[in-house]
Amino acid sequence: MLLLWKPVAGQLRQEVKEYVDKHSLTGKKVSFFLLSDNKPSQVYVKMKKKFAESVGLEGEIIAQETWSTAEVIEAIQERNADEECLWMIVQLPLWEHLQADEAEILQTMDRAKDLDGLWWEQFGRTIMGAGWFLPATPKAVMEILDFYDLGDLTGKEVVVLWQSNLFGKPFAVWAMSRGATVHSFNGSSDQERMRYYFHQADIVVSATWVVNLIDESFMDVKSMPPRAIPVSEKVFIDVWRGIKDWKAVGDIDQPFYTDRVKAITPVPGGVWPVTVASLFHNITVLWER
Amino acid sequence: MLLLWKPVAGQLRQEVKEYVDKHSLTGKKVSFFLLSDNKPSQVYVKMKKKFAESVGLEGEIIAQETWSTAEVIEAIQERNADEECLWMIVQLPLWEHLQADEAEILQTMDRAKDLDGLWWEQFGRTIMGAGWFLPATPKAVMEILDFYDLGDLTGKEVVVLWQSNLFGKPFAVWAMSRGATVHSFNGSSDQERMRYYFHQADIVVSATWVVNLIDESFMDVKSMPPRAIPVSEKVFIDVWRGIKDWKAVGDIDQPFYTDRVKAITPVPGGVWPVTVASLFHNITVLWER
Repeated sequence: MLLLWKPVAGQLRQEVKEYVDKHSLTGKKVSFFLLSDNKPSQVYVKMKKKFAESVGLEGEIIAQETWSTAEVIEAIQERNADEECLWMIVQLPLWEHLQADEAEILQTMDRAKDLDGLWWEQFGRTIMGAGWFLPATPKAVMEILDFYDLGDLTGKEVVVLWQSNLFGKPFAVWAMSRGATVHSFNGSSDQERMRYYFHQADIVVSATWVVNLIDESFMDVKSMPPRAIPVSEKVFIDVWRGIKDWKAVGDIDQPFYTDRVKAITPVPGGVWPVTVASLFHNITVLWER
Repeated sequence: MLLLWKPVAGQLRQEVKEYVDKHSLTGKKVSFFLLSDNKPSQVYVKMKKKFAESVGLEGEIIAQETWSTAEVIEAIQERNADEECLWMIVQLPLWEHLQADEAEILQTMDRAKDLDGLWWEQFGRTIMGAGWFLPATPKAVMEILDFYDLGDLTGKEVVVLWQSNLFGKPFAVWAMSRGATVHSFNGSSDQERMRYYFHQADIVVSATWVVNLIDESFMDVKSMPPRAIPVSEKVFIDVWRGIKDWKAVGDIDQPFYTDRVKAITPVPGGVWPVTVASLFHNITVLWER
């Protein structure tokens, strides 16, 4: 089964739209500070703006190459005071000349308007069992699993490859909250052991940016672990996407595994396009506290 | 090697004391709301008060059985306004008649004075790579490992038993931040697999409250995994303590393992007495932001 993004993102968009309507937020502004020429940032900010507009909000992109820290801070303060501006996002990375002041810039944002910064408190609460909030990418995977009725992880073995702050760590904790046994690997992990654990996994979640890390060779191990899960019963989640020979490719050898596994998120067309909808969907969680 | 608590707690206490002196906080108040007859809470609050006093702070215990929610809230508000009161802790659980209002009571505390509540934001920051803060119990284990020069976890395999909000989850994330491969189990995990992974662990951290869960029988497995770590090279951390036959006992069969492993925290006398010092030591982290 292909875990396609469109129905998931569509449902999230619908819920955000209903939320905007219900709270009479139509026409209110979301401001995106795009202060770099980083290509992925540019694409991502445009996607966020488009999403905001699709639910009836106004998206504003502020992209100024020459601004000093003081000018950026002034622009943020203006929006802090502007009742028409609901939220802000300062897209990272920043221009080199702003990077030393990153913390100061981020902290200038009104707490209640800082859509990314809210993570800290909310996500801390989630970890401590006092809330329900996830950063956009792990939330996207959660929404996909739930949408396709694969989200009950009680007694499941979940292998998570790597341990980034934006994905691997929060996702591992979320999986624990859902009752999973979690095996979390990084680039220093013993490769032989990692391949071995792979066979015990019900769900393999890969977010390494290593193109085709999980290839055909994972099928060969010297000895099988006890209670191995056949590949035909496994669910594969391929989180990021890299580029190889001008094509988008994932961590997983998709041509090899797609027809062999129970379910897989395709690349392109799996997790990534759901992240923007997840980012905005978090608003509905925040405001219902 | 026994990983004894006294030198660790002593060093932490010394650092907190220096901090209190340096910032002229001597004589300032820490208020503990003890609103239940829960025995462990009573012991724990007394330990916290004693620690506060040992570094020159004044510890105040507020224990009122008959107070309504409104009266508790009023007492908190008084301390919010009192410049001599630096921090508050509302020890959980609460009396049954207060439990429905727990969230309201906790949220009444001034943000900057809520020593436990600070966890949420600070710990969220830590997870997201934007800070360095751990709740008291995982911090205690971290301090013990660091003190005995066992804290570099790069490439190490760490098995963590169970996944509580207060320990298992934050500890797992901290271990990831230190470079460990982490295997996190819960009560629904496959027992045979768990025993199998045990043999691949460099460090076994158990926080289950199951008396002697890790007993002699863990040594027997049908087949050994690849690259098993001999028990003589393993480090055992026994986090909680239960009671059996009127004696404090841990998750680990200490008489069997103590002389067989590389290092172990004894029960009693290991992790638990370090947690109070860790709670207060977090103050030094918070204030140096």
